[in-house]
Amino acid sequence: MILNKFYVDDIIKNAIKEDINYIDEATAFVIPEEEISSAVFTAKAEGRLAGIEIALRVFELIDDSVTKKIYLRDGAQVKKGDIIAEISGKTRTLLYGERTALNILQHLSGVATQTAEAVKLVEGTNTSIADTRKTLPGLRALQKYAVICGGGKNHRFNLSDAAMLKDNHIDAGGGIAKTVKTLREKVGHTVKIEVETRNMAEVAEAVEAGADIIMLDNMTAGEMKEAVDFIAGRALTEASGNITLENITEKAKSGVDIISMGSLTHSVKAMDISMKIKS
Amino acid sequence: MILNKFYVDDIIKNAIKEDINYIDEATAFVIPEEEISSAVFTAKAEGRLAGIEIALRVFELIDDSVTKKIYLRDGAQVKKGDIIAEISGKTRTLLYGERTALNILQHLSGVATQTAEAVKLVEGTNTSIADTRKTLPGLRALQKYAVICGGGKNHRFNLSDAAMLKDNHIDAGGGIAKTVKTLREKVGHTVKIEVETRNMAEVAEAVEAGADIIMLDNMTAGEMKEAVDFIAGRALTEASGNITLENITEKAKSGVDIISMGSLTHSVKAMDISMKIKS
Amino acid sequence: MILNKFYVDDIIKNAIKEDINYIDEATAFVIPEEEISSAVFTAKAEGRLAGIEIALRVFELIDDSVTKKIYLRDGAQVKKGDIIAEISGKTRTLLYGERTALNILQHLSGVATQTAEAVKLVEGTNTSIADTRKTLPGLRALQKYAVICGGGKNHRFNLSDAAMLKDNHIDAGGGIAKTVKTLREKVGHTVKIEVETRNMAEVAEAVEAGADIIMLDNMTAGEMKEAVDFIAGRALTEASGNITLENITEKAKSGVDIISMGSLTHSVKAMDISMKIKS
Amino acid sequence: MILNKFYVDDIIKNAIKEDINYIDEATAFVIPEEEISSAVFTAKAEGRLAGIEIALRVFELIDDSVTKKIYLRDGAQVKKGDIIAEISGKTRTLLYGERTALNILQHLSGVATQTAEAVKLVEGTNTSIADTRKTLPGLRALQKYAVICGGGKNHRFNLSDAAMLKDNHIDAGGGIAKTVKTLREKVGHTVKIEVETRNMAEVAEAVEAGADIIMLDNMTAGEMKEAVDFIAGRALTEASGNITLENITEKAKSGVDIISMGSLTHSVKAMDISMKIKS
Amino acid sequence: MILNKFYVDDIIKNAIKEDINYIDEATAFVIPEEEISSAVFTAKAEGRLAGIEIALRVFELIDDSVTKKIYLRDGAQVKKGDIIAEISGKTRTLLYGERTALNILQHLSGVATQTAEAVKLVEGTNTSIADTRKTLPGLRALQKYAVICGGGKNHRFNLSDAAMLKDNHIDAGGGIAKTVKTLREKVGHTVKIEVETRNMAEVAEAVEAGADIIMLDNMTAGEMKEAVDFIAGRALTEASGNITLENITEKAKSGVDIISMGSLTHSVKAMDISMKIKS
Amino acid sequence: MILNKFYVDDIIKNAIKEDINYIDEATAFVIPEEEISSAVFTAKAEGRLAGIEIALRVFELIDDSVTKKIYLRDGAQVKKGDIIAEISGKTRTLLYGERTALNILQHLSGVATQTAEAVKLVEGTNTSIADTRKTLPGLRALQKYAVICGGGKNHRFNLSDAAMLKDNHIDAGGGIAKTVKTLREKVGHTVKIEVETRNMAEVAEAVEAGADIIMLDNMTAGEMKEAVDFIAGRALTEASGNITLENITEKAKSGVDIISMGSLTHSVKAMDISMKIKS
Repeated sequence: MILNKFYVDDIIKNAIKEDINYIDEATAFVIPEEEISSAVFTAKAEGRLAGIEIALRVFELIDDSVTKKIYLRDGAQVKKGDIIAEISGKTRTLLYGERTALNILQHLSGVATQTAEAVKLVEGTNTSIADTRKTLPGLRALQKYAVICGGGKNHRFNLSDAAMLKDNHIDAGGGIAKTVKTLREKVGHTVKIEVETRNMAEVAEAVEAGADIIMLDNMTAGEMKEAVDFIAGRALTEASGNITLENITEKAKSGVDIISMGSLTHSVKAMDISMKIKS
Repeated sequence: MILNKFYVDDIIKNAIKEDINYIDEATAFVIPEEEISSAVFTAKAEGRLAGIEIALRVFELIDDSVTKKIYLRDGAQVKKGDIIAEISGKTRTLLYGERTALNILQHLSGVATQTAEAVKLVEGTNTSIADTRKTLPGLRALQKYAVICGGGKNHRFNLSDAAMLKDNHIDAGGGIAKTVKTLREKVGHTVKIEVETRNMAEVAEAVEAGADIIMLDNMTAGEMKEAVDFIAGRALTEASGNITLENITEKAKSGVDIISMGSLTHSVKAMDISMKIKS
Repeated sequence: MILNKFYVDDIIKNAIKEDINYIDEATAFVIPEEEISSAVFTAKAEGRLAGIEIALRVFELIDDSVTKKIYLRDGAQVKKGDIIAEISGKTRTLLYGERTALNILQHLSGVATQTAEAVKLVEGTNTSIADTRKTLPGLRALQKYAVICGGGKNHRFNLSDAAMLKDNHIDAGGGIAKTVKTLREKVGHTVKIEVETRNMAEVAEAVEAGADIIMLDNMTAGEMKEAVDFIAGRALTEASGNITLENITEKAKSGVDIISMGSLTHSVKAMDISMKIKS
Repeated sequence: MILNKFYVDDIIKNAIKEDINYIDEATAFVIPEEEISSAVFTAKAEGRLAGIEIALRVFELIDDSVTKKIYLRDGAQVKKGDIIAEISGKTRTLLYGERTALNILQHLSGVATQTAEAVKLVEGTNTSIADTRKTLPGLRALQKYAVICGGGKNHRFNLSDAAMLKDNHIDAGGGIAKTVKTLREKVGHTVKIEVETRNMAEVAEAVEAGADIIMLDNMTAGEMKEAVDFIAGRALTEASGNITLENITEKAKSGVDIISMGSLTHSVKAMDISMKIKS
Repeated sequence: MILNKFYVDDIIKNAIKEDINYIDEATAFVIPEEEISSAVFTAKAEGRLAGIEIALRVFELIDDSVTKKIYLRDGAQVKKGDIIAEISGKTRTLLYGERTALNILQHLSGVATQTAEAVKLVEGTNTSIADTRKTLPGLRALQKYAVICGGGKNHRFNLSDAAMLKDNHIDAGGGIAKTVKTLREKVGHTVKIEVETRNMAEVAEAVEAGADIIMLDNMTAGEMKEAVDFIAGRALTEASGNITLENITEKAKSGVDIISMGSLTHSVKAMDISMKIKS
Repeated sequence: MILNKFYVDDIIKNAIKEDINYIDEATAFVIPEEEISSAVFTAKAEGRLAGIEIALRVFELIDDSVTKKIYLRDGAQVKKGDIIAEISGKTRTLLYGERTALNILQHLSGVATQTAEAVKLVEGTNTSIADTRKTLPGLRALQKYAVICGGGKNHRFNLSDAAMLKDNHIDAGGGIAKTVKTLREKVGHTVKIEVETRNMAEVAEAVEAGADIIMLDNMTAGEMKEAVDFIAGRALTEASGNITLENITEKAKSGVDIISMGSLTHSVKAMDISMKIKS
């Protein structure tokens, strides 16, 4: 797992406290302490896998004597019935972690699956699919990781690592040219500046101002093509707003570099994956 | 807001750290410190509102001098174009909190909206719609609160406050009767015991064992009706598994007391709500 | 240990920081780093054991190379002189953890011991002994676990998992009947509703209202018997208020289902247990 | 309140999360949001007050619009029926905080009350009563503060701020003289060194070694007098072990400077204090 | 203050717990609770101010009734004797926060002062002075903010927001060209890629590979000029390694875009600033 | 390592989150997961070592399968070129932890080095070198530990464990005699009282008042000698204020017991130590 482990562990510990709280009474009072089992994770639907190592980490944190076998790795395209992984240890451990592991795995695989769908629809173009900051509170790192598993790319992680100028900034800053200039003088040399534009006039201004990335906001495929042609490589171009699986291919054909989609992370359908314990 | 404030504040602080990290550079370097603005939250789609107080709390935590007007409260059914609330304060404060506030509000209103849809489909029956433990890590309290806003009811909050016996427990415990007995002797008098059943034989055993709630797992509407009639009020009945908006009305007509749906919280489509800053 | 490990670990880490802070100077500057010892936990008084695994966990968290032998488990009735457990490892580790381990073990065994005394006094009746929310800040999980070790039962863990209507609620809610009805429509199906009553009129109202549990508050044994007979199984009955070891047997004979005692957790006499290091 | 506020706030927030968790259902679903009340804290027994500001801080943290009146301050000796303080605000706020506030106040006043009893029994001697490190996990600061309110004095707060040499240290360090010397060369000039002694030979060694404080462990009053006379002011003297309210006066008459008692904090009987809400 | 407030508050609360722990005994036992004072912050040396708002925030967090006057803002060049700010409130509050406030203010002003010295030495060139990741644990945000106050610029904040390829990466990745290509395909479009080079051959490779930034590591001014001329604007250039106040002007004259200096944050001489309380 | 491990681990985890945040992109996307390496820590300058175990703990926390060899321990005087330690494990682990480990090690060795310099300058006198509370926020424990490694001694750790009376306290308390008396009656018997004095009159008062330690603030070597002679062992003496490496030897010759220096921890020059990875 390439994610910073300390974040992942904090999320898992918090989730376990939330899910068990005091005692898992059904398990603690009924399942013998020494009983040993294995559990198998199986895909119940087609999709793109994300989060299996994180899901298994749930059990390792509960009891580090569990053993695991991983058959399919994050990023794998799985079919219904595919066996993903197996975890063995005390039955109690498996039951304590079951719901948390599945909640994480199903959500992240859901993110990866819908990312993979979008990526597939732009195949053959030069367009990449990217996420946004429209993530669920506390879950940005996990969701953005899942976007990578789905073949997408990450937009900025937070407001410190890249700067986007929206209408409020541009109004306060005295227009695109002046605002980009002000900002460029303040931010470090690793920070890219992106400018949100709504029409060709703004696009022209942004190019002139030396924006690193120009966001084409809510434009039609036709407008986008005009903008991309005008920009002609002087800045990266990013399409955003009202992108759907229906219109994404057409929009990608405009030649835009990146299409960013909030829905990848804000509207996620969990992928159906089961965990079956064999006592 | 009826939610425990200390949980909410922790989630918000964590989300702001995740979203801003070090400095919101575009805002801090471009927007004058003393500039004052108002922002309006507007519904861009029809739906059920949840989380507006939490969303506004984001700004209060950043700067407690903001002022707010709430026009529509959590639980309100809103139409596209409805103005929900207004927040006033430093423009910087509004921009610092914008994304976090919207991420929370859109997600929770999404949960409430799909809960309200399910609730509507069982209107006229005696069935309640309930959530499950299939929630997103760290967000259970918020999501369950949103289910209430949508007219649904909360299933148990965690594994300590009610006990559900699944097949693994029943196998280890020596059958339904013996397992319920073992557990009843251990758990406190406020803890209800629910038994998962897959057929009429198990239903009969569960009734006999004195289960407080009997889960009818993955049964057809016909099987459910047979079970409900047999149980005849001796336990609460809960339907679970493969419930969709297509079959929910038919299933409710079986007379089951509760239908619980994981999708209310694990597969959420964000509701479209905008926040527009007027400088 | 059936307690959620993540809670336990947090409590231990916090206690160790509180007890050692920067450096255990006497130990760090005097005891050689590589010196190895064993320590024995011995009961210095008769009582009921609770917390030995938690106490040993203290040392495991400080240095996971310690080894342990547990001779008597939580829930065991011990006599003065009984050897409970042995822990081996670096002398420094044993000294670093000694005070924290003993503070936890003596307190929890104190809770278990006085619970066991109360339980013994109601033997032969149908009454269970339960704890309350009168626990020490931050220690509820540990204390409630100790009550189980003493043969008692847990009342609700927190205000979310069962609802108790006290006079303030009933006054605001428009009387017992109306308040129970209001509440029942809001809470989930796993939540039991308990009503506090002070006289037979209120008892009758509570039965009528369909309360799951009726608390008989501060009643004499005679009043309690009258109430229990009147309720006749239509609700669980719980006695509370002014219960002492002197009057508990008489009160239990009234036939009440549960007697809850705040003193089990709010007024705890530590059980005398020693930890002796053999260098 | 002289206690570090940040510790107090953390303890309160944690306790409230523990006590309410998700939603105080009885209160949130029954008490109208805007209902205003006052609550009065009244002593139901004689004792020494400790923790009233901390108890009221509970409500301030929940909602900073509450108002308070404090009639009796920490350290006051109160009689049954004395009105201690009054808090006004939303009824919900009062109910949310009630149990946590009382749990803290009753426990701390219990500590102060039993400290005051011990202090009274040594009146007229030169002996001070001190606490120990036998405190409850996470509550050391609160408990030690309550000891002050009871007229007692605080022993060291943690293992960093004073060094006590027990038998294990002395054995490893090569005897009292050598161990004190080793330690004195390492610790800072603000750190006092205390040596535990069990007989006159050890007392003589400790004096010779230049110990700042000599603990007379488990000695009879006669042995203690002999030791105190021998030490003759060359070190502070502290009696510890098997001190009870029955023998404390006799032991104090030996002239010992400090008597330290673990029972002040490890075996606390809560003081009975009520909080009555007037709606 | 443009820094994310939630980080700042966490650092302050942690520092106050570290500095006061249980009770500031000298203050709590000697200074009357209601005594009011003012304190003045005065520069005792020439330097660049950074952290005055953070320092005053210390007192606001302890007691939000303090009032403040700020005469000189972060970024101001101050002379010995300049009055920076004044804070008024309870004397206890001022004493509780004094050490923490000064520790922060003196350190950050130290960072800003040495940054300003370096910036001054490159005046008239096109070179910016930047910080590095050589910051003190837990203090990166504060230190980087102080660099801005000193007129410097921030290098990347963490390993997620820009990617630097060092020799280990390049060896594992199969050379500069291949490694940049591999990485570019994975990272998002807002992430700049920097390549560390040690000679002209590597510089040429890096330009060819399309690096966004080329680090000229440990080069002489002459080598740097050759590299800068060769690169000719095709990438940003950054000098690093063995930069001292003695050679920085010469190195800047090579035309390099950025000079980054670890010493700005890893070797900080506190600026002398006093806080004087007038009782 | 004699430092409380739980503090150290918290500091490391926080530093790693700060340094990596989401993903170390260069490493995660370029270095193969299973690649194994060793890294060597080498002194690049002469100095006193402090923090090597803490630095290696960084890697252990990231992946507990790393192995280490420590050639030189904390407290060792090292020469340029000395090999300090070696760490082996996954290359990714080494790269993830590199910056954090070095930042800690270089800073702490810097503290130890300048402490050792001061200690050397007072060799042959009876004076010890001590630190102060002028430490960096969150780093007090680490910095004070490094002072020990440099041969210095620790002043009080926090405001709870020893009491220092400064002018504000003495003014409020009614003069030195009365203030010491007031305080002595309140603080525990393990707490030493130190009084800050500026002239012989105050010194005389402090002796009379029975201060445990007398701070000679900002005195010349001559004044200090006069004070030390006057005090004549009736209290410990501590010199503070305007101590530099230039005047420290002369000041020590006055016979003062302790010289405390804020610069040991507030103005630290990092010691140059490299970590070189051999892939």
